[in-house]
Amino acid sequence: MASLPWPFALPRECLSSLAIRAAARMPLLHLEGRFIILASMKPFSAEDPIAALATPWGESAIAVIRLSGSGCLALLDRLFRPAGLAAPPARALHHGVLHDGDEPIDDVMMAVYRRGRSYTGEEAAEIFCHGGMAVVQRVLALLLGSGFRQAEPGEFTMRAFLNGRMDLTRAEAVNEIIRSKTDRARALALQRLSGGVERRINAIKARLTDLRAAIEVRLDYPDEDLPDEPFGLEAVHAAEEELEELLATYHTGRLMQAGAAVVIAGRTNAGKSTLFNLLLREDRAIVSELHGTTRDYIEGAIALEGIPIRLFDTAGLRRSRDRLEQEGMRRTEKVIRGAHLMLFLVDATRGLEEEDRRLLREYAELGDVLPVWNKIDAVGRKNGLPEGFLPLSAETGEGLEELRREVVERLSGGHELRGDQVVIDSERQKELIERCVAALHRCRQGTGEKLPLDILAEDLREALSCLGEITGEVTSEDVLRRMFSRFCVGK
Amino acid sequence: MASLPWPFALPRECLSSLAIRAAARMPLLHLEGRFIILASMKPFSAEDPIAALATPWGESAIAVIRLSGSGCLALLDRLFRPAGLAAPPARALHHGVLHDGDEPIDDVMMAVYRRGRSYTGEEAAEIFCHGGMAVVQRVLALLLGSGFRQAEPGEFTMRAFLNGRMDLTRAEAVNEIIRSKTDRARALALQRLSGGVERRINAIKARLTDLRAAIEVRLDYPDEDLPDEPFGLEAVHAAEEELEELLATYHTGRLMQAGAAVVIAGRTNAGKSTLFNLLLREDRAIVSELHGTTRDYIEGAIALEGIPIRLFDTAGLRRSRDRLEQEGMRRTEKVIRGAHLMLFLVDATRGLEEEDRRLLREYAELGDVLPVWNKIDAVGRKNGLPEGFLPLSAETGEGLEELRREVVERLSGGHELRGDQVVIDSERQKELIERCVAALHRCRQGTGEKLPLDILAEDLREALSCLGEITGEVTSEDVLRRMFSRFCVGK
Repeated sequence: MASLPWPFALPRECLSSLAIRAAARMPLLHLEGRFIILASMKPFSAEDPIAALATPWGESAIAVIRLSGSGCLALLDRLFRPAGLAAPPARALHHGVLHDGDEPIDDVMMAVYRRGRSYTGEEAAEIFCHGGMAVVQRVLALLLGSGFRQAEPGEFTMRAFLNGRMDLTRAEAVNEIIRSKTDRARALALQRLSGGVERRINAIKARLTDLRAAIEVRLDYPDEDLPDEPFGLEAVHAAEEELEELLATYHTGRLMQAGAAVVIAGRTNAGKSTLFNLLLREDRAIVSELHGTTRDYIEGAIALEGIPIRLFDTAGLRRSRDRLEQEGMRRTEKVIRGAHLMLFLVDATRGLEEEDRRLLREYAELGDVLPVWNKIDAVGRKNGLPEGFLPLSAETGEGLEELRREVVERLSGGHELRGDQVVIDSERQKELIERCVAALHRCRQGTGEKLPLDILAEDLREALSCLGEITGEVTSEDVLRRMFSRFCVGK
Repeated sequence: MASLPWPFALPRECLSSLAIRAAARMPLLHLEGRFIILASMKPFSAEDPIAALATPWGESAIAVIRLSGSGCLALLDRLFRPAGLAAPPARALHHGVLHDGDEPIDDVMMAVYRRGRSYTGEEAAEIFCHGGMAVVQRVLALLLGSGFRQAEPGEFTMRAFLNGRMDLTRAEAVNEIIRSKTDRARALALQRLSGGVERRINAIKARLTDLRAAIEVRLDYPDEDLPDEPFGLEAVHAAEEELEELLATYHTGRLMQAGAAVVIAGRTNAGKSTLFNLLLREDRAIVSELHGTTRDYIEGAIALEGIPIRLFDTAGLRRSRDRLEQEGMRRTEKVIRGAHLMLFLVDATRGLEEEDRRLLREYAELGDVLPVWNKIDAVGRKNGLPEGFLPLSAETGEGLEELRREVVERLSGGHELRGDQVVIDSERQKELIERCVAALHRCRQGTGEKLPLDILAEDLREALSCLGEITGEVTSEDVLRRMFSRFCVGK
């Protein structure tokens, strides 16, 4: 085969749109085989200088203002004393004073990056100023008045992608690592950021690309004397299985990243608040929520085996009934409907009563319910334990370990939670893998049914296109916009 | 005089404790002429490696973790790949991955500073990691488990001071610039950070030092044939005046930095909320409060000529009476007692009634009250305007400009608010200047009363010691602890 005219057979995906874009110094997209110039894509179109606060808004020691874009160092140089930023070495740190005309604004450190050596791949800088709100406000105002434009959410990472600094799975991981609420979630996101998903996808793609090349050769040279058997079937099957495996990690990925809501319910005096407090005391999440709704004393953040869990105590919710009964009821129901799991507590000292059965039936219709036989410290561990109930003493903590295990089991839906896996957490990636698997499946079926080679080639093309979209070799403006709009400003 | 044995006459303050400390590589304090080794001064004693988050806690693009101390780069080098941080050039930026053993923690940028080239003057570094809460938590845990200790508030700046990187007036200005709530306050704080106060104090000190040297010479060589007249009186007087001038800026400094509370009061329907909303709309502070109590809808932040003002609407406060009358009343009174100025609104369409007079008398006892004749749009500008009242229409905005001017006038207490002044904003500096002025005054009086030269010398010594304390040449552990404990962690 080595003597065949390869350029014909090479799939078009092998032409990196990034390489061409880099050569043309113009943002291009490779969409369904065509190159599209992104010139119309505001605000992501150009390399115009952008600026954004990259740290949270508030008083602190340091605030970071991030800058990127063509000519941004020359613009900065006019605002910074001493001068000399405009032609930096690869990366450099400078100390000086930002000026608005002759008025000094702040004493700052500045990191400057030459084109090709920054996060975005463009000329870039970071200003480390005093973390005062008046300072940050004034520095931003100065920059926006001096040729910089406020960056859109995710625009720095978007530029990093457009400039070929990272593929789309890594770009998505940037946001995921920031949003991670437990250390487990951080570790999984970092694996994606390090290219775990990209490598896996590219390996599959390389094998399918070879297969497609071979098929195209056969299509282009039908008269050549080539073997006739339906080759490549095993490769397609193996790719399908590998992708199915990756797909199966999505549940875990989502669970670790977005977490779950667990609600504690039951009749008065069933021990709801006692269990709520026990879990909060023992499993408090290492990170607390920012704008703590916990101030309502009805919601808390815990982590079980790395799963971030929002825990709701309906006792707290019910309390508000006294004041505004209607509103309290509505709120309780909303929380229950939104929960992934309900812990329904029954007071073992009182036994399972008709009202408990009625509530259990009612809640079972709304979602997954784990019935808990509470207060076993008073009645004994097995005494009168109804079937399907988990024995617990929220008072002494007896049975807590089993409860934790069962909660994790129910939330993970039987999916294994291994630490070293490459796990996906992107609706976008999941859907593309599903489409790819479907195309491969069609291709395999077609081979069995002896469909013409050009139909199989079309299925393979579709599968490869999906894989290309995952890493961003092939993508659309719309997808990029949606993805990056979910980012922090400044990232 | 040049032939005299000068070392005798040199005031001890001229020996810089910093120079000696730097030579000995040991923190020393120069206290009342004695050098004290700070070895007992935990946590400020040593150069042990410290770490702290320097940006606010929350999800964002970037978080900065600051590190300083002897050997900190070698410690970091064990956690960072690629290796090679330990012997940096003066300042450098590195890109790599933080590791906990073999586990990667985050992909980070790192700024490293050689001893003598950092903020603290020590070996130092800044880690720019992803601004996720799980990331920050894990990186901090890693550092604290690897030889770093959590930094105390202000400890970085404290070290900068101890290592002679800045005097105490600049160190105080670091905190002041961060706390600044308006651009005017920022500009004044930056002036102090640039050494505005330090230079002023040192100039005065230099002249008084010359004078004291001359007096000491005379005391040490009483038999020398030196002129007899009470020289130096003009210098003392000039220093006194200069210091008095600086002292007079304290009111402005405090006002710009700490701001003022202004409360709007008056009977029902006097237009309190209308004025509150008008001021918020027109003069909203450029920076909003962090943990906005504004959510109560009774407090807002505005800025008038750079004065940050917390504005309270007692109408809002009163509303809470319906629910918990007692608590609402207590809260209203607390706000009124804490306010710097009250705008008392009277409904001009109803006229000044006995109840208004009663309230005005009552409030006048609690503080400064500015009576406002509201709703002049309905009754005409001068119609029935009682003496001492300011005419206003909160509805149309007529009279707002005069109201603003009067509020600024009352708050500034007649002190001029010039933009280019060196202004002090430190209780500590103010008290030391007062003590210095008193000593200079005694010295001048004593000269007039022909008191013995050694008594005058003692007054001068006291005055010089106060000036030395202002810049931190002479200081005490207690003062340092108090000052830096008010800083942000990480600064």
